[in-house]
Amino acid sequence: MTGRWVIISTERGARPNEFRFERPSVIGREFCPFCPGHEELTPPEIMAYRQGGSAPNAPGWDVRVVPNKFPALKVEGALDREGEGIFDRMNGIGAHEVIIETPDHDRTLASMSEAEIERVLSACRDRVLDLKRDWRLRYILVFKNHGAAAGATLEHSHSQLLALPVVPDFVREELEGARRHFEAKERCVFCDIVHQEIAAGRRIIQETADVIALAPYAPRFPFETWLLPRRHAARFEEAPRHEYESLARALKGVLMRIDRALERPPYNLIVHSAPFADARPEAYHWHVEVMPKLTRTAGFEWGTGFYINPTSPEEAARVLHAVRL
Amino acid sequence: MTGRWVIISTERGARPNEFRFERPSVIGREFCPFCPGHEELTPPEIMAYRQGGSAPNAPGWDVRVVPNKFPALKVEGALDREGEGIFDRMNGIGAHEVIIETPDHDRTLASMSEAEIERVLSACRDRVLDLKRDWRLRYILVFKNHGAAAGATLEHSHSQLLALPVVPDFVREELEGARRHFEAKERCVFCDIVHQEIAAGRRIIQETADVIALAPYAPRFPFETWLLPRRHAARFEEAPRHEYESLARALKGVLMRIDRALERPPYNLIVHSAPFADARPEAYHWHVEVMPKLTRTAGFEWGTGFYINPTSPEEAARVLHAVRL
Repeated sequence: MTGRWVIISTERGARPNEFRFERPSVIGREFCPFCPGHEELTPPEIMAYRQGGSAPNAPGWDVRVVPNKFPALKVEGALDREGEGIFDRMNGIGAHEVIIETPDHDRTLASMSEAEIERVLSACRDRVLDLKRDWRLRYILVFKNHGAAAGATLEHSHSQLLALPVVPDFVREELEGARRHFEAKERCVFCDIVHQEIAAGRRIIQETADVIALAPYAPRFPFETWLLPRRHAARFEEAPRHEYESLARALKGVLMRIDRALERPPYNLIVHSAPFADARPEAYHWHVEVMPKLTRTAGFEWGTGFYINPTSPEEAARVLHAVRL
Repeated sequence: MTGRWVIISTERGARPNEFRFERPSVIGREFCPFCPGHEELTPPEIMAYRQGGSAPNAPGWDVRVVPNKFPALKVEGALDREGEGIFDRMNGIGAHEVIIETPDHDRTLASMSEAEIERVLSACRDRVLDLKRDWRLRYILVFKNHGAAAGATLEHSHSQLLALPVVPDFVREELEGARRHFEAKERCVFCDIVHQEIAAGRRIIQETADVIALAPYAPRFPFETWLLPRRHAARFEEAPRHEYESLARALKGVLMRIDRALERPPYNLIVHSAPFADARPEAYHWHVEVMPKLTRTAGFEWGTGFYINPTSPEEAARVLHAVRL
């Protein structure tokens, strides 16, 4: 009915009687596969930023990218798209990588320096540029789960990257909506939002040279925050260096504000960027969405696709803007 | 971009520093507003099934329907739809009701008798039929959150009903998909699913006279279960008595199977039914979806709208079908 795809990833699964209300507890420092000296606990690294010419898969790195040990999708194999009666099936071709953001087990993204955050963004960009060369991959999602309630199973700060053989529903919907706006107005809807929000002011959280952080007009979650580059551009991985710098500064500001106002909540962070093959880059505008995990998604949200949010965006922006950094 | 609506419901809200990782703990027996003798703790009842002519808002009821004390939407007022620059806003007109399913604080839906479950279904139907008379309301969602991790804030078994002034995104998408199928094939896609799944057998969990319970081909969540009437019909509230009877039997079976196989997990239950004004009832087929809450929704799901499921539907059906009732 909906064209929705689901990844059935039984390698990640547990036996039925191993399911519990909550996931097994987060893996802490002792057995942390992301700490220096434990490099053999991950699959061999794909890429690392290293100082002083240290050897691969050994300590000495600043950022390290490895394949996910329990990947939802794999590069090997053929797509093999086929029907099963009225249903459709294909092999789970793709990539699932982990960006280990820092060698320090206790650093969070919010507590890293702006230069360190920029380095994480660069590592993500490098991986996207590399994976884009595989024609089978249609979309790459860069995201971060911070904290157990946001889905993280490891404490040590990391982001993830999933390269997919289809353009996901939510991305397609956002693209189509942005195109409808562009066709009607010959303007980018995100540029319109940036202009309208700067003029209104009430939902602005922070501004840096190249980036605006704001509470979106219809936030799904309390304290949901979007970071948009002022300059129109469709793709995250094509941004110039000064925009990463500016995004790193804004992101650090936003995450510190959220940590201080809301007592270090779990959160999800998602990079929204145009698919590789998208022929209309004038209609889309890359950006980052941060969603603190303060409420639970329940039957109403699953049944409707829309959200009950107990905090207005104006109140959220007021609270986050007022935090002293 | 997406046409998504969000309900900003600040009356339900907490001050920023009251947000925590998890919601405050579930309200237990002592202060339970849904227990007989505590009727004054809820707003006055809208409807109740009572035996022996007991007075409203007093003990003696079997099922009791009350307005939600912290409603996301209210019946009073005008829709007042207006623009705010490029955005759209309207008043939160609607209804938010609670169906208290049993006077017994400790009964769960799974442990009620089939007749008791049927009574709950009838109460939901009665409320839908009554609310349908308000022309401003476009859709009524009947749903249930069971357990704290599934969003329930009260232990005492209850369902909810939200009447909305718009047709929600997910419902619209499902309807449009079903219509596309109908236009191409002149058949209902859900009827096709029922036939294909009965023939295949591998994803069937339980069958009753009028209802099939199955693991859908592309389940979002492990052990997701759909209950579909065999007979084509667009709307839950128009079902004949024998279908409620059959649904109650299937629902009891499914919930008991889930309880036994998965150690009483939290779950969400959602009734999918055609909107009131839908002019093409031949294309839609009402049904019930049950989603045990065993995994967490994280950045990947929020970023893509599709899901990573560690349990195949064939395995889920095998496990649930094998439970001895």
